[in-house]
Amino acid sequence: MSLITLLTDFGTQDIYVGVMKGTIARIAPQAQIIDLTHAIPPQDIATARFQWMSAYPYFPPGTIHLAVVDPGVGSSRHPIALQMPSGYLIAPDNGLISGILPIEPPIAAVKLTNPQYWRTPNPSNTFHGRDIFAPIAAHLANGVSLLELGEAIDPAALVQLPMPLPQQLPDGTWQGVIQAIDHFGNLITNLRGDLVMGKTWSLQMGDRTFPGCQTYADHQTGEAIALINSENWIEVAIVNGNAKHMGKTHQFCVVSFGVNPNGR
Amino acid sequence: MSLITLLTDFGTQDIYVGVMKGTIARIAPQAQIIDLTHAIPPQDIATARFQWMSAYPYFPPGTIHLAVVDPGVGSSRHPIALQMPSGYLIAPDNGLISGILPIEPPIAAVKLTNPQYWRTPNPSNTFHGRDIFAPIAAHLANGVSLLELGEAIDPAALVQLPMPLPQQLPDGTWQGVIQAIDHFGNLITNLRGDLVMGKTWSLQMGDRTFPGCQTYADHQTGEAIALINSENWIEVAIVNGNAKHMGKTHQFCVVSFGVNPNGR
Amino acid sequence: MSLITLLTDFGTQDIYVGVMKGTIARIAPQAQIIDLTHAIPPQDIATARFQWMSAYPYFPPGTIHLAVVDPGVGSSRHPIALQMPSGYLIAPDNGLISGILPIEPPIAAVKLTNPQYWRTPNPSNTFHGRDIFAPIAAHLANGVSLLELGEAIDPAALVQLPMPLPQQLPDGTWQGVIQAIDHFGNLITNLRGDLVMGKTWSLQMGDRTFPGCQTYADHQTGEAIALINSENWIEVAIVNGNAKHMGKTHQFCVVSFGVNPNGR
Repeated sequence: MSLITLLTDFGTQDIYVGVMKGTIARIAPQAQIIDLTHAIPPQDIATARFQWMSAYPYFPPGTIHLAVVDPGVGSSRHPIALQMPSGYLIAPDNGLISGILPIEPPIAAVKLTNPQYWRTPNPSNTFHGRDIFAPIAAHLANGVSLLELGEAIDPAALVQLPMPLPQQLPDGTWQGVIQAIDHFGNLITNLRGDLVMGKTWSLQMGDRTFPGCQTYADHQTGEAIALINSENWIEVAIVNGNAKHMGKTHQFCVVSFGVNPNGR
Repeated sequence: MSLITLLTDFGTQDIYVGVMKGTIARIAPQAQIIDLTHAIPPQDIATARFQWMSAYPYFPPGTIHLAVVDPGVGSSRHPIALQMPSGYLIAPDNGLISGILPIEPPIAAVKLTNPQYWRTPNPSNTFHGRDIFAPIAAHLANGVSLLELGEAIDPAALVQLPMPLPQQLPDGTWQGVIQAIDHFGNLITNLRGDLVMGKTWSLQMGDRTFPGCQTYADHQTGEAIALINSENWIEVAIVNGNAKHMGKTHQFCVVSFGVNPNGR
Repeated sequence: MSLITLLTDFGTQDIYVGVMKGTIARIAPQAQIIDLTHAIPPQDIATARFQWMSAYPYFPPGTIHLAVVDPGVGSSRHPIALQMPSGYLIAPDNGLISGILPIEPPIAAVKLTNPQYWRTPNPSNTFHGRDIFAPIAAHLANGVSLLELGEAIDPAALVQLPMPLPQQLPDGTWQGVIQAIDHFGNLITNLRGDLVMGKTWSLQMGDRTFPGCQTYADHQTGEAIALINSENWIEVAIVNGNAKHMGKTHQFCVVSFGVNPNGR
């Protein structure tokens, strides 16, 4: 049984996602499809990159992951596919894959230049999700090999989306940024939980300091805390509340050690 | 393997769609189900008609398409099913099917009068999706033939939803209307791309004129343009932006030829 | 074929639900998954309880129902699973199951204390949906027996969520509350349709009286009415409109008999 995941900015109000699934079903009716999300803000490659890399490690070997957030659709940006140790990636070459590549190195990459595996040799200028990407996913699910899909390219030459890296400051603290805000209003930094494991710590953002904690449940409803989330990122959360108003994406934050009056 | 698609105005906050799927699974556990959308505005038959016809051509032969947008539930409007060259349609007889019928002529139609194929002989007055339509889809998936489901009727007698047709004006221009606005804020007209293929053209709406273009990617972010979309409709779009504020459903627009200062 | 349903407050903007499905697919690739809803308001156990019990009766025997609305994640609240006459329930022990237990009595219950059936022996403090609940659902789908999953407990000792019960007043009327408001803006009371079956009746809420009716379709668009919904609850609705502004959750309402000037 083959498994395909979908991540797009198409929303769920129109039938665009359904049409991609119908297109897959015509070619590979046996394929199972799992939606990661279709609520990426329109054309927001950075958010898509973050969400895609967050989901990637949890799927069975051989899973085919398809992401379509594609502000350059119809331009000269290339549609690409990668064979990975754990499965396949299909996307426009605009940086979407650049969160996943550090997780494991690609085995091979191709530009999707072989129209035999498209829905039509004359794809729409505005919906490559239907005309190129979905059919490619379906053909991979049917066992077509990556190198049949087009021209091999060097994975090192793929478009990277530069992301700020955490850095240690001269005073020993670590500076990072908010990289995402989730449905619960948790502010997810790009600082790894390993930095604070076994230490007394706190997180400073703007003029607020959040005590570093083990879990939501150690604290009272309404308390604002910092903790290590399920993906090993440090995040700011309000216990049983929403911290969205306390920060925004790309805002700086700093982890300090040894001072944490309220943390448990 | 049988495939059922669902399109409703039920939203995804309640368990109504899940209950329809559970009802299908009780009767036809092998059926695959694909959601087209559940975000049709409540009781909006015109939007449902547009979305349903937009999805229809992309599914495998034999697909069973079920749409429930049903302001007349519990009244004398009939639940119906149609056998089509490419599959089946199930819906209340309120005009939902009238966008699909021009795509291909029906083979047969029935009123769903046989309670043997309902969930219960005493269906709820408010949820025929669960009690009539979903079971019918499941029984079709199991191979029950259309004519067992109820009384045959003349497809020509089904309710039609009158839609404005594009018309050519005496000066050679074409007048149409906005028929839908999608998640990206693209204003989708009812004018076919064939009208402008190979020509220099522009679209006028209100006091604005939009240059006729080939693709989003030919233009700068933020530019407002007209182009042919993936369904061969002419649409107004803002490149990597949202044109929702520039028009509304049913608003008139006019395609003119030979004058297009900014188009490429 | 095994069927798993999911109900959470995770929303669909992030990949949390997708990650649960990937985790299930790693263990039980043959399992079918149906989403009930992921739009429970964050941490709202009462709404989740209502939605879960509303969906439960409509699934095939053996269905595995998983609900994760978990304000106590990481605290001492227990993750539990129940064997029911019609299937399985998996949830945190915080009252989520207490709407379903009156439908049918549990056969057995366990605390999920056996880490062999978790994703990892060191589950995240913030995402038991991924690390405990989804793997348990998958192992049940694979035929693991309930009692292997952990320590047997007395179902009578599970956390109950106390809900107000309808009561008959001295004048013979019945008093209840609004227990939920759905996507269509229908105000769903906790009063059973059986109370009014075959009688002339009306519903009073605040200073408004709503005529008791059989179906939406008996009335004009825009009329506010009371009727029996598809789950046998009395609800307030505006015909082809939205009654959300007319009441709120927990608001009192009273059913009276014999007076109904406008009802049909």
